[in-house]
Amino acid sequence: MCRFALYLGPPIVLDTLVTKPVNSIIHQSFHSHERKEPLNGDGFGVAWYVPELSPTPALFRSITPAWNNDNLLSLAGVTLSECILAHVRAASPGLPVTQTNCHPFTHGRYSFMHNGAIGGFDRVRRALLQSLSDEAFRAIHGTTDSELMFAMFLDHHKRLEAPEAAGAMALALEATIQQVVKAAEAAGVVEPSYLNLAVADGRRAVVSRFTSGAPAEAASLYVHEGKQYVCEEGLCRMVSPDVGRGAVLVCSEPLSQDEGWERVPPNQMVVVGDDRSVSLRACAPVPPGGA
Amino acid sequence: MCRFALYLGPPIVLDTLVTKPVNSIIHQSFHSHERKEPLNGDGFGVAWYVPELSPTPALFRSITPAWNNDNLLSLAGVTLSECILAHVRAASPGLPVTQTNCHPFTHGRYSFMHNGAIGGFDRVRRALLQSLSDEAFRAIHGTTDSELMFAMFLDHHKRLEAPEAAGAMALALEATIQQVVKAAEAAGVVEPSYLNLAVADGRRAVVSRFTSGAPAEAASLYVHEGKQYVCEEGLCRMVSPDVGRGAVLVCSEPLSQDEGWERVPPNQMVVVGDDRSVSLRACAPVPPGGA
Amino acid sequence: MCRFALYLGPPIVLDTLVTKPVNSIIHQSFHSHERKEPLNGDGFGVAWYVPELSPTPALFRSITPAWNNDNLLSLAGVTLSECILAHVRAASPGLPVTQTNCHPFTHGRYSFMHNGAIGGFDRVRRALLQSLSDEAFRAIHGTTDSELMFAMFLDHHKRLEAPEAAGAMALALEATIQQVVKAAEAAGVVEPSYLNLAVADGRRAVVSRFTSGAPAEAASLYVHEGKQYVCEEGLCRMVSPDVGRGAVLVCSEPLSQDEGWERVPPNQMVVVGDDRSVSLRACAPVPPGGA
Amino acid sequence: MCRFALYLGPPIVLDTLVTKPVNSIIHQSFHSHERKEPLNGDGFGVAWYVPELSPTPALFRSITPAWNNDNLLSLAGVTLSECILAHVRAASPGLPVTQTNCHPFTHGRYSFMHNGAIGGFDRVRRALLQSLSDEAFRAIHGTTDSELMFAMFLDHHKRLEAPEAAGAMALALEATIQQVVKAAEAAGVVEPSYLNLAVADGRRAVVSRFTSGAPAEAASLYVHEGKQYVCEEGLCRMVSPDVGRGAVLVCSEPLSQDEGWERVPPNQMVVVGDDRSVSLRACAPVPPGGA
Repeated sequence: MCRFALYLGPPIVLDTLVTKPVNSIIHQSFHSHERKEPLNGDGFGVAWYVPELSPTPALFRSITPAWNNDNLLSLAGVTLSECILAHVRAASPGLPVTQTNCHPFTHGRYSFMHNGAIGGFDRVRRALLQSLSDEAFRAIHGTTDSELMFAMFLDHHKRLEAPEAAGAMALALEATIQQVVKAAEAAGVVEPSYLNLAVADGRRAVVSRFTSGAPAEAASLYVHEGKQYVCEEGLCRMVSPDVGRGAVLVCSEPLSQDEGWERVPPNQMVVVGDDRSVSLRACAPVPPGGA
Repeated sequence: MCRFALYLGPPIVLDTLVTKPVNSIIHQSFHSHERKEPLNGDGFGVAWYVPELSPTPALFRSITPAWNNDNLLSLAGVTLSECILAHVRAASPGLPVTQTNCHPFTHGRYSFMHNGAIGGFDRVRRALLQSLSDEAFRAIHGTTDSELMFAMFLDHHKRLEAPEAAGAMALALEATIQQVVKAAEAAGVVEPSYLNLAVADGRRAVVSRFTSGAPAEAASLYVHEGKQYVCEEGLCRMVSPDVGRGAVLVCSEPLSQDEGWERVPPNQMVVVGDDRSVSLRACAPVPPGGA
Repeated sequence: MCRFALYLGPPIVLDTLVTKPVNSIIHQSFHSHERKEPLNGDGFGVAWYVPELSPTPALFRSITPAWNNDNLLSLAGVTLSECILAHVRAASPGLPVTQTNCHPFTHGRYSFMHNGAIGGFDRVRRALLQSLSDEAFRAIHGTTDSELMFAMFLDHHKRLEAPEAAGAMALALEATIQQVVKAAEAAGVVEPSYLNLAVADGRRAVVSRFTSGAPAEAASLYVHEGKQYVCEEGLCRMVSPDVGRGAVLVCSEPLSQDEGWERVPPNQMVVVGDDRSVSLRACAPVPPGGA
Repeated sequence: MCRFALYLGPPIVLDTLVTKPVNSIIHQSFHSHERKEPLNGDGFGVAWYVPELSPTPALFRSITPAWNNDNLLSLAGVTLSECILAHVRAASPGLPVTQTNCHPFTHGRYSFMHNGAIGGFDRVRRALLQSLSDEAFRAIHGTTDSELMFAMFLDHHKRLEAPEAAGAMALALEATIQQVVKAAEAAGVVEPSYLNLAVADGRRAVVSRFTSGAPAEAASLYVHEGKQYVCEEGLCRMVSPDVGRGAVLVCSEPLSQDEGWERVPPNQMVVVGDDRSVSLRACAPVPPGGA
């Protein structure tokens, strides 16, 4: 498994997310709190949006551990963004450690990351690949289950009647999750899937906390919202609990001891709107896992 | 395009192939003679067989250039093998530079490398992938046309009536080439494919020089056979022109100014048998491309 | 030898320097025009200043070739700066390819890069190292002659009576060059040194074109100044030849076919002031090389 | 701190040391038992001797973690040696993660590795560097305290009256340790040094367990000797407890649950002779630190 953090809000310097918090995403790369295996040393990645200069997100990924990457540390201090995705990876067995397999993945203006694994991926991979449009298929550059789900998301999103409407990304992510669940059922896979998926387009985002197995086993996910997220002398916190038009953090683990981190219930999605309003919705209208 | 070298013969130290010759595979990584673009700096790889210790080949690949890889230089001085494949890569546009995309590729006791490209790969890739058995599909860890052809070879080889018979590898490689040609025709691809493919199992090898376009445009390929290949004080040569039970080199370019390098005609395969006999055979009974 | 480019002027996007020009620094990494050996594939680096966010420059370096570095390409599209240093490296024989040996080097608010080599470095290295203050000695993280000269520069600069005065950086760079020349003479070194050195502090810069050997053998250096440097549809040029308060480029080779690139005479320094005025001054008041 | 393992004995396949044992050196790279911080993910290295092919050891090092290095895993399965040094690194704060800083270090026929750190290295480094002969100084390619001690060892060894005599390496290692202790005293350093140092020449080896601080705080070190070290189905053990002419392992931690691992007392050296006899001797005749 892996750890991730997503930020939407007033522009912050990257290191506010990546290095400064007590339990920053870099800290989680070698000392995760909420995982049995505390190590996420198989690469990392950061995607961020600079809408003034580019309609597509920037991407920095590496197969070396985040904790000793001087480029990341330097870059994080001079990069300002209002939409950031950061990820540290613990490679699933059998999936190679290459830069193309590091999260986040980006395509057009979308970026995507995953914490978890598709159960029995080996047995459903070909069916899922064959379901893709040529365009989505060509968007895949690596070999992970995660990037394949991103391609599925792109297809589901494109097929929506109103792909630009509020909630469209949530619909497409939900369809992606359901497709994985159905493909696993069709293939007779009994191992549960763990699908904490995050997708963003620079202004909006959706993050799921989903498992097709026992809900209590879903990988952890927290949301934190307020007016502005600041780090001063190592202490990171939301400066005001005011909700709305502010900042939103959605993370595998709380980044700080700040109050206000709320655990996302299993099989729910955190939907962050254009106005940075935060709402929850069920991951799937039909109970997943055949339950 | 890329450059490669294959050796079968009495055990030689790896550096006899990789560093010592005037035009060694490392030299070709930054100064290829027979290519318009002289640079092959997008990674390299070496596979070699140590049958006493392992039935499967060892593999060393890297995304950094061969010419400054200290590990390769050190390793090459202490590694003895009677079957070696070495490759320097110039990545085709759009194919990422990852370790899993570096040649050679290995599976079971087979190793494989490629110099060239499938014309219009983007338009035939999915059809070729779908043709694979589940086992061959799972053998793919990267995203190159080259590794996909290796998977196709594994399938064709397995389906042979006598996969262990002399000539079986040649039949499977021929079927692979024909399948590529047919898939390109079916997809209406007009760009020619360049398929200099090398496959070995530690005792035998087949290397094709093939193009579906104008034969004169086929990428270069040379064969050199004799009693023993030696490098002394920078001078590399076959110590005796005696044919049979000796050493065979099949290379994109001559490694040395030694006489005896023979140009392989276009659309022919070099077949090296168990006894290291060398023969040529046509790549395809049916004229490809122009048929 | 290596190739470098330095920019001071109105904020430009990094790719205006790194990827967009016909003869961009990336292009020079595999196809340098003005060097016998056209390849600079032993790593690269970029330093840039974002004074709003950090008093010290950001630094991105890598041991893989610039031409296939996806992180660099992505970063270059979203990074805006008014002071940029970019460098592609061809490692001097015996100097290892590590990230700490890649240029530019940074310390405090200074950044530094080098094209060339200290003649007989092996014989003068220890004396030069011993001349350093403890602080400058500790600023060294690698093993190159280049970084050692940066440490010497830091010492000479600190010892100036008015280190913040206009021209102070030029004085310190001149003292550095003289110290190298004297140390080589003292050690009986006859091989010439090639010292194209660039140092910047975010607002000002000095770049030398120096050799202790035959002046005609000095590595190439060009300066280009104007109002604003722009790249539109692959065509890069200064939009106005107006001098002053504009943009300055100092590069190993012209980045574009734009007129206005002027060759810097041997053993001269280009001094770029706070107001981006450009002046030349001799590298050394005393004729170097014992002449 | 780091973890290391040294083997001298009948030829074994590298993976017998590196991957197969329950607590192999790779396992220690992410799950060390006897350290507070269990992670050694800042690179690794292996040196091994193939005297038939080269008088100098081969060296394979990487800045990526050992646990996901496919090259290491492949190489380890086909490499046979009677003298192997393996090391996983947790970089000391401030020391960069570069390949040249990864252990082991090699020079001529000697190889060297270190677990620990020189106390107050920053304050004694220059004095120790200045003590070196030119030849030893030039043997340094990185910036670690460890490689500096190797250079000091080379000097002390060369100055011995009988550098080829039994015990000569132990004398030189002892002189190295004493020089560190004296330099630290001279510089007023109070932080203790931890100097578990291993040096080998392919036939003989010396490994120290030393601290200039409280002896109980010395980093762990174990020795294991017997007839032959074998790994069968994941179970690794010495096949016979017979001492002499057999195999010797000296490791930071036991590699297996096999009985026979003996803890080396603090401030002692394990000396392995030509005949693979094992003896202990005090690291320093004069009580260090507290003297």
